[in-house]
Amino acid sequence: MNQIDIVNIKRASDYIRYLSLESIEKAKSGHPGLPLGCANLGAILYRYILTFSPKDPLWANRDRFVLSAGHGSALLYSLLHLTGYKISLDDLDQFRQKGSRTPGHPEFDRELGIETTTGPLGQGFANSVGMAIEGKILADRFNDEEYNLFDYTIFTLMGDGCMMEGISYEAASLAGHLGLDNIVAIYDSNHISIDGHTDITFNDDVAKRFEAMNWDVASCDIIELDSLYNKLNSFKQKKGQPKLLIVKTIIGDGLDKKKDTSAIHGSPAGPEEIAYFIRNSEVRSLFENKYGADTVENTEELALKVSERAKNREPMLEFPEASDFMIQHIEENQKKYKTWTELLKKYKASHPAKYDELDSILNFTLPEELKKTLTEFKEEKPDATRNIAGRVLNLCAKKIPQIIGGCADLVGSTKAGVNGSTYLNKNDFSGRNIAFGIREHAMGAIGNGLGLNGSLIPFTSTFFTFLDYMKPAVRLAALMKLNHLFIFSHDSIYVGEDGPTHQPIEHLNSLRLIPDLLTFRPANDTETAFSFLYFLEKMNGPAAIITSRQNMAAAVFNRSSNNTSKYKEFCNGAYIFHETNKKLNPDVILAASGSELGIAVEAAFELEKSKQLNVRVVSIPCLELFSAAGQDYKGKIMDSKPAPVVLIEAASHRAVDVFYDPNLLAIDIQSFGLSAPGNAVGEHFGFTVRQVLQKIEDIL
Amino acid sequence: MNQIDIVNIKRASDYIRYLSLESIEKAKSGHPGLPLGCANLGAILYRYILTFSPKDPLWANRDRFVLSAGHGSALLYSLLHLTGYKISLDDLDQFRQKGSRTPGHPEFDRELGIETTTGPLGQGFANSVGMAIEGKILADRFNDEEYNLFDYTIFTLMGDGCMMEGISYEAASLAGHLGLDNIVAIYDSNHISIDGHTDITFNDDVAKRFEAMNWDVASCDIIELDSLYNKLNSFKQKKGQPKLLIVKTIIGDGLDKKKDTSAIHGSPAGPEEIAYFIRNSEVRSLFENKYGADTVENTEELALKVSERAKNREPMLEFPEASDFMIQHIEENQKKYKTWTELLKKYKASHPAKYDELDSILNFTLPEELKKTLTEFKEEKPDATRNIAGRVLNLCAKKIPQIIGGCADLVGSTKAGVNGSTYLNKNDFSGRNIAFGIREHAMGAIGNGLGLNGSLIPFTSTFFTFLDYMKPAVRLAALMKLNHLFIFSHDSIYVGEDGPTHQPIEHLNSLRLIPDLLTFRPANDTETAFSFLYFLEKMNGPAAIITSRQNMAAAVFNRSSNNTSKYKEFCNGAYIFHETNKKLNPDVILAASGSELGIAVEAAFELEKSKQLNVRVVSIPCLELFSAAGQDYKGKIMDSKPAPVVLIEAASHRAVDVFYDPNLLAIDIQSFGLSAPGNAVGEHFGFTVRQVLQKIEDIL
Repeated sequence: MNQIDIVNIKRASDYIRYLSLESIEKAKSGHPGLPLGCANLGAILYRYILTFSPKDPLWANRDRFVLSAGHGSALLYSLLHLTGYKISLDDLDQFRQKGSRTPGHPEFDRELGIETTTGPLGQGFANSVGMAIEGKILADRFNDEEYNLFDYTIFTLMGDGCMMEGISYEAASLAGHLGLDNIVAIYDSNHISIDGHTDITFNDDVAKRFEAMNWDVASCDIIELDSLYNKLNSFKQKKGQPKLLIVKTIIGDGLDKKKDTSAIHGSPAGPEEIAYFIRNSEVRSLFENKYGADTVENTEELALKVSERAKNREPMLEFPEASDFMIQHIEENQKKYKTWTELLKKYKASHPAKYDELDSILNFTLPEELKKTLTEFKEEKPDATRNIAGRVLNLCAKKIPQIIGGCADLVGSTKAGVNGSTYLNKNDFSGRNIAFGIREHAMGAIGNGLGLNGSLIPFTSTFFTFLDYMKPAVRLAALMKLNHLFIFSHDSIYVGEDGPTHQPIEHLNSLRLIPDLLTFRPANDTETAFSFLYFLEKMNGPAAIITSRQNMAAAVFNRSSNNTSKYKEFCNGAYIFHETNKKLNPDVILAASGSELGIAVEAAFELEKSKQLNVRVVSIPCLELFSAAGQDYKGKIMDSKPAPVVLIEAASHRAVDVFYDPNLLAIDIQSFGLSAPGNAVGEHFGFTVRQVLQKIEDIL
Repeated sequence: MNQIDIVNIKRASDYIRYLSLESIEKAKSGHPGLPLGCANLGAILYRYILTFSPKDPLWANRDRFVLSAGHGSALLYSLLHLTGYKISLDDLDQFRQKGSRTPGHPEFDRELGIETTTGPLGQGFANSVGMAIEGKILADRFNDEEYNLFDYTIFTLMGDGCMMEGISYEAASLAGHLGLDNIVAIYDSNHISIDGHTDITFNDDVAKRFEAMNWDVASCDIIELDSLYNKLNSFKQKKGQPKLLIVKTIIGDGLDKKKDTSAIHGSPAGPEEIAYFIRNSEVRSLFENKYGADTVENTEELALKVSERAKNREPMLEFPEASDFMIQHIEENQKKYKTWTELLKKYKASHPAKYDELDSILNFTLPEELKKTLTEFKEEKPDATRNIAGRVLNLCAKKIPQIIGGCADLVGSTKAGVNGSTYLNKNDFSGRNIAFGIREHAMGAIGNGLGLNGSLIPFTSTFFTFLDYMKPAVRLAALMKLNHLFIFSHDSIYVGEDGPTHQPIEHLNSLRLIPDLLTFRPANDTETAFSFLYFLEKMNGPAAIITSRQNMAAAVFNRSSNNTSKYKEFCNGAYIFHETNKKLNPDVILAASGSELGIAVEAAFELEKSKQLNVRVVSIPCLELFSAAGQDYKGKIMDSKPAPVVLIEAASHRAVDVFYDPNLLAIDIQSFGLSAPGNAVGEHFGFTVRQVLQKIEDIL
């Protein structure tokens, strides 16, 4: 006997196919291949397997579905429409149109049931690993024998692209290591990618590969619906390992000529193919009812209708039998939801402290005490900002239990670790540190996954030069405005002996160019603490804190008398750090960030002493904030013509400097670094007080 | 009976350990763990396995050794010193010092025997896959039954870091697919990474994982020298699959307390540990001879000597027995070298056409005819620059047989394919196209590997937004000045419906910031051809050609009358594309790149017509070249104060624009894109002629 209603699943699947095909046809762009190939799978998942609550889409214990193969967005939107989320038929009609709820690739919106932004391949899968780790952490912190508050499962759908990307291997390797049994990956194995059959480039034994990474693997064919259901269901329950279900599918299933071809991956099917699908599927009746059986019987006429429907954006056809069937699951899920909320109530009564902790995790506010600590933060003696950042991170972590994160095998160097806490491991998720291994890309995306739900505040860390390895994840953090803190140490050429491969040059300004990300390059103790404070206070997206390997100059430490007003200035991204005589116009303005502030201040002292000049030193901890602070503020700080501005930054301003104010002299680096002791490298590139002074004197 | 001289190998290995330890001690920085752990392996490889010729280090059929775990550079330098390369004991003394031949991580220099720059983990391994593909291509083109000209093997040493990085998985998967039996990877499996034992994060079954990717795998312990030799030797011969030898090693082998700990990975061993090593190794006699047996017997005294030696940079101790033993292999190799050169002579006589082809591949010059074709290149009608670039690439590929490359599963979109040629596959390497699969990072690094030897000119291609996935390889191409052409299509928001994940924003200026890379964003047919021409003419490092998805405006096509002088202007990176009246000062200067040049030109026409203004339009195909062209040229083109400059570029100039000339109005994009038809997105961000005109009028 069937455990699932095969007839209705098939009907619903065909309706999903129809919705996908027509919305793509209307948009004149999109990817029908996956929605057609995986419609059965989607229908079973959303009808039988997933536990969720469209009325409370942020329900903390919902199962998550991640469409890692994000180009198949039409599948996801169709499913969310059919299961009570706020995606209407009209929204499907507006697929890929400006301002719609149904953009080309899924864009993170938990209210709509979209758990993460996907499209860049492999990211969604790695996000899922982060989500699974979050589930384990919440379970560790709040579950007990009586209260199984957190036991959600992450289902993530991968295509051949996800399978080939290196990030997926990195994330899978870590997931296997951590024994994340709350993740079920599903591999849509259709053997077709954009350039043709995958056998032109890919013939891994995927099952064996995942087994080698400590995953539990099973396979089935998507046409065996009972088997598919059983395997998904048993994998949802099975403990001990992460699980991969390899599902043999046919891309573009339901079409005539384009089925099983790369042509259907990323282009509309076209009226003829859609007409073929309609005539041979469960949606035939919809069209017969609407246009008459004769029209449907006539290939050309039906294709013409399909074409007209798309052109005129006629409303999508409704299919009550399919909708009613899919919606039944909501009722079943609502029972589970109710049970859970009652359990939580009991938990509140029996575990008041734990409950408060949970509440504070789900609804973060910055503790006032910590705010005060960070505002007033000062260090006794000069140090490298990586060390200072390590201490500030620990001050924060102490007060904010949801801070959790780790490094790509460099905690001893970047100092981004929670002291006195262990690494997560498969038997114990009570730690605050994650040993990401030498897997920067997965680290970034897993960090994003940790941050998606808003319960945890993730940090991730490596050398600044290896930002490159994780850039796609940094970009997605910004695009999703996730509160993910990136800590990048070893910020410039002063890295020294490790040489050019380890010396970031272009990275600082590259980061600044990314929308919705803030890059802090603090110059001292105060600015380091302020960088953390700004991030935690705003909670409005990711920040990167760029720290030095070497000590900062003594001249820049312990100078602030009123830190509250100093923090206000800091929030403008740049501020006057030193001025010979505030009542006079400066003779020269020296602007710098990070370790170069020390050079600027020492140069200023020298110019005051030896040349009796009025010098203003501007610190720029966050150029993006400075740029956003407006012309008036910028004028107050930086424009003092005819006094020249000297910008000192051991980073590339290559090419864009062609547009710079002729009144500004940029002392920067436009070549790669070299291997030598840090000071020698600094001198080689002209970053000593003496050399900078010479350049200033030349222009004065 | 032993096949190798165990006694001598052990002696040489200990000398390598000594050289590594002392050079690191002198530098006060470095990574002794790997050189100590892998000294035996290195000695066997360079004494028995590798075929090379230090007198002709560029010998086209030499075996290559790639130290993918580049931090272990002291091992490589010690080996090269011992085997006749131009690295002296003095050079080892200067380890990690400014201007030395022995920088912190190996820096590409074939004359020295350094086949590629390594340090960023996984890159060297992926480079090796590219080198192996090159070997297969050369063999396919030039070998026949009688002449086995190319049969070299790539040996590549990977650590745990290389194993964890996603790029290695990508590269290994492709290598397995292509059956590259001319690569032998060696896994230095010491179970220690920087943050401790690898079991905190990594417990893949590596053998199984590689078998799943169609590799042949064997294992052994590094202390079994005969077995190690036999396995390396048999793997060098074995056909059909790429091969992985997993070698169990002990990090820091030879030391006392620091052996087998993460402490020895990346810091000098210290005098006490070195003294321990000396007393218990084959180099003991060197110190006894130099300082007396009593000193060596006394722990503290010996440690003091070690410390003094480092402090005073005393010359390295010589060890003739070890050196003499290692150098013997050169003679054996010279015989092979001689045989090969004689074979080549015969080949020249018997296959004159083939020989000339080989010669032209090894000594590239740009064919004059092609230069003319590219200079005079024009298209009949407006098109997208991706299509134009595809056609230009094919013009080049037709005349230059060493052009070879491919896409990350997007050839239909980026058009970067050699028409009429097949994909490489394990049975046939005659094709000109490589199906890299959805593996951008490995693509970039394999492309670098293809370019390292100077015989091939690789191109690689994907969507511009996915530059992020391969940035580390792009950086290394620039660092090594490899002639690797990157073709990135879908250059901006006009990508349209695919939405923000697929719309590059920060990428254009990010690329421009990278030293030694040129970024071309051509605006029409001529500029596209010129971009290729510049790259092929200079052959002085990598270039990126950024192309559009959508058609360029008709107004920018077919305008040049004298293309030779136009090309000269183009080489300055920016030039006057249009000017109302060259005799008058302009009222406004409009500067743009790529598709925005069309907007600028159309806006100029409108301003001329409706406002009778003198308008200058500046095209900026390569901002880096413009920046490098000097103040005079820049002044001639862009400075015409008080006429304002309007820069129109659908890309981020975020944050750095705070430094821009107040006389310049930048019309750019500082947020992420959105999903909608391309024109709608363009309009949303203000990139229509009408909107741009409005902004120009506002400032005039």
